[in-house]
Amino acid sequence: MKLKVRDLDISSGGPLIAVINSKDAKILDLHVMDRIKIRKSSKVETVVVDISESKKVVPKGKIGVFEEVINSLGLKNNDKVEISIARKPLSIDYIKKKLDGITLAKEEIDQIVWDIVHNKLSSVELAFFVAACYTNVMSTEETILLTKAMVRHGDVLKLNKYPVVDKHSIGGIPGNRTSLVVVPIIATSGFYMPKTSSRSITSPAGTADAMEVLASVAFTIQKMRKIVLKTHGCIVWGGSLNLAPADDKIIAVERPLSIDAESQLLASIMAKKHSVSSTHIIIDVPVGKDAKAKNKVEALKLKSEFKKIGKRLKKHVRVMLTDGRQPIGNGIGPALEARDVLWLLKRDPRRPIDLERKCLFMCANIFDMIGIKDGYRKALKILDSGKAYEKMVEIIKAQHGKEIAAEDIKIGKLSHDVMSARAGRVISIDNSSISRIARIAGAPGDKGAGIYLYKHIGDKVKRGEKLYTIYAESKHEFEYAKDVAKEFNGFEVVTK
Amino acid sequence: MKLKVRDLDISSGGPLIAVINSKDAKILDLHVMDRIKIRKSSKVETVVVDISESKKVVPKGKIGVFEEVINSLGLKNNDKVEISIARKPLSIDYIKKKLDGITLAKEEIDQIVWDIVHNKLSSVELAFFVAACYTNVMSTEETILLTKAMVRHGDVLKLNKYPVVDKHSIGGIPGNRTSLVVVPIIATSGFYMPKTSSRSITSPAGTADAMEVLASVAFTIQKMRKIVLKTHGCIVWGGSLNLAPADDKIIAVERPLSIDAESQLLASIMAKKHSVSSTHIIIDVPVGKDAKAKNKVEALKLKSEFKKIGKRLKKHVRVMLTDGRQPIGNGIGPALEARDVLWLLKRDPRRPIDLERKCLFMCANIFDMIGIKDGYRKALKILDSGKAYEKMVEIIKAQHGKEIAAEDIKIGKLSHDVMSARAGRVISIDNSSISRIARIAGAPGDKGAGIYLYKHIGDKVKRGEKLYTIYAESKHEFEYAKDVAKEFNGFEVVTK
Repeated sequence: MKLKVRDLDISSGGPLIAVINSKDAKILDLHVMDRIKIRKSSKVETVVVDISESKKVVPKGKIGVFEEVINSLGLKNNDKVEISIARKPLSIDYIKKKLDGITLAKEEIDQIVWDIVHNKLSSVELAFFVAACYTNVMSTEETILLTKAMVRHGDVLKLNKYPVVDKHSIGGIPGNRTSLVVVPIIATSGFYMPKTSSRSITSPAGTADAMEVLASVAFTIQKMRKIVLKTHGCIVWGGSLNLAPADDKIIAVERPLSIDAESQLLASIMAKKHSVSSTHIIIDVPVGKDAKAKNKVEALKLKSEFKKIGKRLKKHVRVMLTDGRQPIGNGIGPALEARDVLWLLKRDPRRPIDLERKCLFMCANIFDMIGIKDGYRKALKILDSGKAYEKMVEIIKAQHGKEIAAEDIKIGKLSHDVMSARAGRVISIDNSSISRIARIAGAPGDKGAGIYLYKHIGDKVKRGEKLYTIYAESKHEFEYAKDVAKEFNGFEVVTK
Repeated sequence: MKLKVRDLDISSGGPLIAVINSKDAKILDLHVMDRIKIRKSSKVETVVVDISESKKVVPKGKIGVFEEVINSLGLKNNDKVEISIARKPLSIDYIKKKLDGITLAKEEIDQIVWDIVHNKLSSVELAFFVAACYTNVMSTEETILLTKAMVRHGDVLKLNKYPVVDKHSIGGIPGNRTSLVVVPIIATSGFYMPKTSSRSITSPAGTADAMEVLASVAFTIQKMRKIVLKTHGCIVWGGSLNLAPADDKIIAVERPLSIDAESQLLASIMAKKHSVSSTHIIIDVPVGKDAKAKNKVEALKLKSEFKKIGKRLKKHVRVMLTDGRQPIGNGIGPALEARDVLWLLKRDPRRPIDLERKCLFMCANIFDMIGIKDGYRKALKILDSGKAYEKMVEIIKAQHGKEIAAEDIKIGKLSHDVMSARAGRVISIDNSSISRIARIAGAPGDKGAGIYLYKHIGDKVKRGEKLYTIYAESKHEFEYAKDVAKEFNGFEVVTK
């Protein structure tokens, strides 16, 4: 059947979808979520069918296509395309199998990941896969196969170096910008640390957002390789690369139910690390009520799984359990966090000591893993010598940035101090409230927006003393953030 | 936040969905599949958010809305609406609970069904619910709660009569138009039988499609009630009523994986029956490789579940296991099936005897359930007396139709005979191939399209003798159906 293309001018956000009129659907005996092949000269693409009952948008004889299909086939409005019936992807059968509680084989997991990467599955089908892995928990063996499949169906950074160091912090803690300190310290020591980071999804800033205040973060894998070979380190945005791309698509489907199939969490982290040829990986698992690991039992379970998978992937993996009860560092938001980091590397008295300690502790563990003793002192010496700062400047320049003084980093012009209503001691800081206020103030989109903390848990505070300052770049966001902070500022202060 | 409406001119097919620009989303800290409230004067509706990165379709300051939202709020292009953040529906938590293997309570199942009926769940969320019920199989208790909730959140036909008879055939068998014969026989006997039927989804004709050849089938529940009180019976399309509407939405999500959560199959059938106040229900479970019950073990399991749920709903339920290996009757397709039924009721020698026997057997069981002996003979007497035919004419007239002779029913003008390639005996007929050919020929959209069978399993056939005729109304469909039949005609003939 020949149909005329109508560009719907909408993106599906992933899946390849086309809409045909119910009259044409009837002729081909097609139903919603069936598959068709669209052929345009020599190019063919299999897409998921949606059916329009009305003739308003897609009349008989037309085919409405989403942006993803337009791009994949290079279509234009009114192009004629040939349509034929296509089989469902093989992975549908495998998803059903997993739903029935059957352990999947290598080829089956591989096919599912391939279909995910190539946008062959509708979001409903992907939801069934996630649900299947969630209820019929994947075995360690399956998780390893999933990890490997994610790596295989994506790009890989080959360095041919040993050791290659990597780190990952499991999210949920505001601030916590360790990579921007750990990478230059490790790189200074002569080891390779090709760090890829994410942008914020639900937090006020991801590592990539903070690094972007100082340098570019979007590179091709070839360019990343050059930077790493030259400077021994980098801090780039993983989203600009094509490392284990199945991961992001799975996460998108998990979000509405806030479920986190553990096997997928493990697979996705290890796949990203595996993709950049890491040999020594340190995993930071913050423990706290707003963190992914709510308590020590959960954290230890994660730890044991990471170790198991690391072993099977022939990687050295060490897992650190850290304090996840409050933000790490003082700045929250891209520019405020970048400023914290520069202060820290410059040995400025305003540097956040909690962040420094955590970074040194992390470096000590990395050094220990690769057989270097007295790592904490060694890392501190590198910091104090100013060499870590110099290395950071080198990396910033390699990533198309310029050296900048911490004071010259632009912070939002609008500011509002949040005071303690009483004297006493800070006994808790609600991570999710602090994140929310910083986001509402404009972070991470407005780089200068966010929160700067003056107090942490255990600190004494006077009545009317500043707890934190809210920074914003635009009036509307600023007012809204102030309102939200007025309702609940996230701090619990108890009078002795 | 105030936004300007843009009518996207597309239907989502159920869920209430609106699209906002990523810039506006950032201000409200909204993500894909979050919820917002849209207020237009005094009307408020909670909808699922989709986010557009590009400004092509939904620029900052606009909100793109799907047809379902347009209708629900009575919106027009460029209307100004007020947007605010809304909580996720409560049922998301309950779906997660079921996914975690926890048995759901009455209020929880109730909330889920309410949210489904009111289009509050995205298809991904609904998929998680279906997957949860599939892997963590619902208990009988939960299935009963689901049935009752489906009935509660829909319209109900109240008759205040006893007994009220109903029947249901579990699908998959072409032809099998028993309702059009059983309803007039039971109604002639003075009992009430308010039959609601479906249109075809994947078959060449549903009961409603065949009845539509003779009369109207779309009525309100008030009108249906009048018809039943007057004639004791009706054969109307369930889709025009609002009986247990959650069901159709669940089925739509199950389709891509062809999964059939048994609890939902049971609940959906029993809910439809419960909604029309049936007291005595006969369930026809065909057994065969293309039927829902592949073998006797599966059929008996279904039977026992139906009995259990019937008992708890205080209904008399009888389950018949029938032969599902081949089509029942000769005509397949709306007009061809309607003609079979008129021949049968008119006692024409051309009537299909297999269909007649099955209908009489069904009536015998119904009579037996309500305490009437010798039901088979009684039903046959009603048929032979012509009273069932008279009753059918009465029902047809009540449903705005006219009496019509079987010969005057319009069958497709294009016809093609499919012959046996060899002499021998028919040993199998492939239901799904026969259905597929009839659908491709144009059924059920083209009422006169379909297949007329001359042979059934066990029949002797000569070389070159007709197995069946394909009928079609339009050339294109006709040619395609012939091609498909040429490849495999669905009959297996074995030489003795």
